[in-house]
Amino acid sequence: MIISLKKNTPEAEVQSFIKSLEGLGVEVNRIHGTDYDVFGLVGDTTRVDEKTIRANPYVDEVTRIAAPYKKANRLFHPQDTVVDVAGVKIGGKEKVVMIGGPCSIEGEELTLDIAEKVKAAGGRMLRGGAYKPRTSPYAFQGLGTEGLKYMAEAREKTGLPVVSEMMSADKLPEFEEYVDLIQVGARNMQNFDLLKTLGKTKKPVLLKRGLSNTIEEWIMAAEYIMAGGNENVIMCERGIRTFERYTRNTLDLSVIPILKNKTHLPIVIDPSHGTGDSKLVEAMSLAAIAAGADGLIIEVHQCPKKAWSDGAQSLTPEAFAQVVEKGRKIAQVVGRDI
Amino acid sequence: MIISLKKNTPEAEVQSFIKSLEGLGVEVNRIHGTDYDVFGLVGDTTRVDEKTIRANPYVDEVTRIAAPYKKANRLFHPQDTVVDVAGVKIGGKEKVVMIGGPCSIEGEELTLDIAEKVKAAGGRMLRGGAYKPRTSPYAFQGLGTEGLKYMAEAREKTGLPVVSEMMSADKLPEFEEYVDLIQVGARNMQNFDLLKTLGKTKKPVLLKRGLSNTIEEWIMAAEYIMAGGNENVIMCERGIRTFERYTRNTLDLSVIPILKNKTHLPIVIDPSHGTGDSKLVEAMSLAAIAAGADGLIIEVHQCPKKAWSDGAQSLTPEAFAQVVEKGRKIAQVVGRDI
Amino acid sequence: MIISLKKNTPEAEVQSFIKSLEGLGVEVNRIHGTDYDVFGLVGDTTRVDEKTIRANPYVDEVTRIAAPYKKANRLFHPQDTVVDVAGVKIGGKEKVVMIGGPCSIEGEELTLDIAEKVKAAGGRMLRGGAYKPRTSPYAFQGLGTEGLKYMAEAREKTGLPVVSEMMSADKLPEFEEYVDLIQVGARNMQNFDLLKTLGKTKKPVLLKRGLSNTIEEWIMAAEYIMAGGNENVIMCERGIRTFERYTRNTLDLSVIPILKNKTHLPIVIDPSHGTGDSKLVEAMSLAAIAAGADGLIIEVHQCPKKAWSDGAQSLTPEAFAQVVEKGRKIAQVVGRDI
Amino acid sequence: MIISLKKNTPEAEVQSFIKSLEGLGVEVNRIHGTDYDVFGLVGDTTRVDEKTIRANPYVDEVTRIAAPYKKANRLFHPQDTVVDVAGVKIGGKEKVVMIGGPCSIEGEELTLDIAEKVKAAGGRMLRGGAYKPRTSPYAFQGLGTEGLKYMAEAREKTGLPVVSEMMSADKLPEFEEYVDLIQVGARNMQNFDLLKTLGKTKKPVLLKRGLSNTIEEWIMAAEYIMAGGNENVIMCERGIRTFERYTRNTLDLSVIPILKNKTHLPIVIDPSHGTGDSKLVEAMSLAAIAAGADGLIIEVHQCPKKAWSDGAQSLTPEAFAQVVEKGRKIAQVVGRDI
Repeated sequence: MIISLKKNTPEAEVQSFIKSLEGLGVEVNRIHGTDYDVFGLVGDTTRVDEKTIRANPYVDEVTRIAAPYKKANRLFHPQDTVVDVAGVKIGGKEKVVMIGGPCSIEGEELTLDIAEKVKAAGGRMLRGGAYKPRTSPYAFQGLGTEGLKYMAEAREKTGLPVVSEMMSADKLPEFEEYVDLIQVGARNMQNFDLLKTLGKTKKPVLLKRGLSNTIEEWIMAAEYIMAGGNENVIMCERGIRTFERYTRNTLDLSVIPILKNKTHLPIVIDPSHGTGDSKLVEAMSLAAIAAGADGLIIEVHQCPKKAWSDGAQSLTPEAFAQVVEKGRKIAQVVGRDI
Repeated sequence: MIISLKKNTPEAEVQSFIKSLEGLGVEVNRIHGTDYDVFGLVGDTTRVDEKTIRANPYVDEVTRIAAPYKKANRLFHPQDTVVDVAGVKIGGKEKVVMIGGPCSIEGEELTLDIAEKVKAAGGRMLRGGAYKPRTSPYAFQGLGTEGLKYMAEAREKTGLPVVSEMMSADKLPEFEEYVDLIQVGARNMQNFDLLKTLGKTKKPVLLKRGLSNTIEEWIMAAEYIMAGGNENVIMCERGIRTFERYTRNTLDLSVIPILKNKTHLPIVIDPSHGTGDSKLVEAMSLAAIAAGADGLIIEVHQCPKKAWSDGAQSLTPEAFAQVVEKGRKIAQVVGRDI
Repeated sequence: MIISLKKNTPEAEVQSFIKSLEGLGVEVNRIHGTDYDVFGLVGDTTRVDEKTIRANPYVDEVTRIAAPYKKANRLFHPQDTVVDVAGVKIGGKEKVVMIGGPCSIEGEELTLDIAEKVKAAGGRMLRGGAYKPRTSPYAFQGLGTEGLKYMAEAREKTGLPVVSEMMSADKLPEFEEYVDLIQVGARNMQNFDLLKTLGKTKKPVLLKRGLSNTIEEWIMAAEYIMAGGNENVIMCERGIRTFERYTRNTLDLSVIPILKNKTHLPIVIDPSHGTGDSKLVEAMSLAAIAAGADGLIIEVHQCPKKAWSDGAQSLTPEAFAQVVEKGRKIAQVVGRDI
Repeated sequence: MIISLKKNTPEAEVQSFIKSLEGLGVEVNRIHGTDYDVFGLVGDTTRVDEKTIRANPYVDEVTRIAAPYKKANRLFHPQDTVVDVAGVKIGGKEKVVMIGGPCSIEGEELTLDIAEKVKAAGGRMLRGGAYKPRTSPYAFQGLGTEGLKYMAEAREKTGLPVVSEMMSADKLPEFEEYVDLIQVGARNMQNFDLLKTLGKTKKPVLLKRGLSNTIEEWIMAAEYIMAGGNENVIMCERGIRTFERYTRNTLDLSVIPILKNKTHLPIVIDPSHGTGDSKLVEAMSLAAIAAGADGLIIEVHQCPKKAWSDGAQSLTPEAFAQVVEKGRKIAQVVGRDI
């Protein structure tokens, strides 16, 4: 950590400042600059609070050199983490995992049917929402426990592990019972109580990036879960908010090589929410695989225009099968498979 | 709601589309355009789901004319709502309410002391964090229940109602016991489970705007609480995320006249988080009052550079007193008082 | 165009409003809504000014249904435009064009040398900056005319057409003489005087997207050039500004399928400026080709760490050759070639 | 400037790196960190190019401590700059200057008439657009030279200095002849050729902030003009682009205290473009004055709903007079006057 003090800070203040820093167990190196005095802190600065230091009125700027995360940091854990989701491996050099399914779980039959279609098309995991985060209190909020049960049933029939979003900590027991991969939605990425709760389970977590969060904040959210004891975290990019009005979100594929560099966790791309438009899903799926994604999570519905939610971004099972097929060829070019 | 269909949509599809809309209980008016066919929906469109309509591949664009909120809408509730927080009235033509206190509650004595100083300076409510949303799992997470108890004690001694942030639904009982105004933090603005829980209490809620949320999404979050039965909602602007790097957030004061136009709820401004820099707090406080704010919530600490969190943005009690004094004169110019 | 008037607008005002619209040559259809009156305009609304209509105090909302661009619009020009840059064809089903070269032109020898290396690696066009848009007035501003001459020389030797940025209208004559493809930089995307000037030449234009512009604004900038008479416009995505701090920009690859849908113009991707980090260039290049890009423009330098500008994002000639090679295989999967 | 090198950088590379920095005339201080080696540069780092340093593959991070601007920097020029615009002084403790007038100049009579009304209402400068930056090539582009002449005429009659936007360098002679304060529009804030041209005149320049530019970039644009020799620069905030859809822009009033801290230049606020909605102009004007603005530039039109452009954001002369009157009382509270 680098700290600069303002020109003309009284020397007594400087000395008391250095002492307070040394009290935190770090070594302080001073550089006399032209317009500022600069201090370099050496040692474990993870626990030094930037904001407290900024509170000193003589402080001009504080810069962190070392990343604020440890467990998620590639620097201290150079090998890729491979997460095992009920037998399906994701990350490292494993096959790219295709995850398909409806936005909302709509009923028993439809769920079983779509699970079979996803599997037939080459999907290896089933997605589906039982609890839905909706902007309006008047919109359909999901089937809840009933929906999770249909998913568990679909897993029985097809063998596909299932992923679904958990919106509050008190639902953990039923997610541990019915679900194989627990999703944290974009709007809950910094719901720290939820993250702490997920640190206590061993179920893998699919952590979606918040709509306007930086990659560092996103890794810090993973760090929350890992610090609690659960290292089975999979990162999921689902589009960020930008000024663009032709799409609901802007899918940021640069996170793939960036995360590979900063962390050892697997990375999955959601081109359905990431664009909000089924016409764009195939192109973005192929691009994600070319960039090195470890998996894709795609909305698939028997009849998109009759879906209870998000039909505009759902693929038909046939379109999904085509993405898998073309994606496999791309994967092979970059040394992977599907 | 206005829907446009693509050029060359088969007439049979158009008819089936109209029928499905009429099935939702709205009247459909058709306009034959040059490049598009346009349909105007008349009636209660609050429950018509935009996304479902967009799923129809023939649909080109969907535009909502009426706002998606009812209970928070000024159109249907023209008088200002005045919220009563344990005797302190906020909103309408009531006095501008000054709320002061530390970012984090740090101990019994400090809390009692700061409460007295806030009161002496002209503050009418005490703020303080007992549960802290922190980006890092390694940072101080707040004193919890103990902190709330100190606040309740400070209320006993000074008569100031207290406001504190609640981060998860299971804490409602203790907030109902110790706190007068329950704060929803920016990162939880779309934690819909938390909002639903707050719809069931009668305690007033201070709803902070999310870092990158639109005003409509913010009002929809208020609508969640109100739809649950709790109409005591106060909106709180605390700065939005922008590209600026000289400040932590960009305080958006235009929300004051906009909210006054769109909704009847009171609006409070938080210039401390809104700028992250104590040097900017006075100027932004005066500006907020000039623009018509119903209250201000400001961080005040005996010794900002020793604060456990966010000292960089805290005022001393003396600086807070000066803001109150200057603010009062501004308030009088715009027909209010402090 | 759809216009809604506020509840309780006096009928006389409504009638005068309708009359003024009809005076603009469009047909007006009225729908009586519950809370609003809505008017649908039929006919050529390109020249109807939204802002003028909003100035009417009774107007609540204005929504454009038809896109505001004509010449760039895929709707009126369904075939792909193929632009011929001094013999190199770009767009449609043509080969993906690889463009390489230094950020800044640094001297005669280095320019000739890099041109040969770019060509040997599979590049088909040479890029290089002679006039540099620099944030600081104290930074190197480019070699100017001298730089353009070195590029023209390199073209003589290698046969590669050259592309360079033009920053002001008065430089058109020398760009017409020395350059084959005139680049409009991101910061000048809405320098309308420059766009008008480029409408008067026949040289192809590479139009970079502004840092925070929407796709519609970007297409409107192309429309400026096309409306002036020059239809040889190539769109170039070079990253947008977001909240991310790990990269200089966020490369938005979703523009590829979106532009293909909205317009008939070719689309080129710049992963060098788009990420600002050479470690990310290969992954994003392959992704861009997988998504359907018509070309890539990549910074290549003999010795990136000695480059006069932007070395951090430059590839060595060897790394560029590898991108071409892998890119070719990806191109073949999506029905193209390099 | 602080530079960190990656863990395990070979010592020979470190030494060659230090030597290259010393070659730039700065002193290099080395700190051996736990995970990184850190180097503090002492001396004039204004000319050290961050990007070149980043190009070194061993470099991990580069942080500038000193601001990259000199002439605009409050640190080296502690007194407020007061700019004299044809006799009207702006900045320091001078009166808050109210500037009014139409978005576009529409004709001789209307211009003379509005000038008189602006003056009668308390305005001290006349604004008006003769060259209009329009998103669409099909929209009205302004009256050009003719418009400037009408403004000069209005100045003759009323004594009000005039301000108008210049969009290209070749128009400087006519702006020097007819205009007292030359405006650089938001879309041209980084049109560096235009800025360089304005460095060569002595006319004061009103420099609008770009739609998505940081404050530092904005000050650097001022530095371009000042480095050229023209120190008469006035900063003008006109709203930034955010995700909000209820307004065209988000007016950022925090720039007022920030700029006062970072630079000595005067700051003017444009609440008309800054909100795009006349209903919001009064509240934001009063707020700006409370926060310490040196001037306001407001659109005023005889009949907003008939204006040729931007009527939605224009005030009537009566409404403008009311802003002046209320603003004066606010100004007096903060130790100024109008």
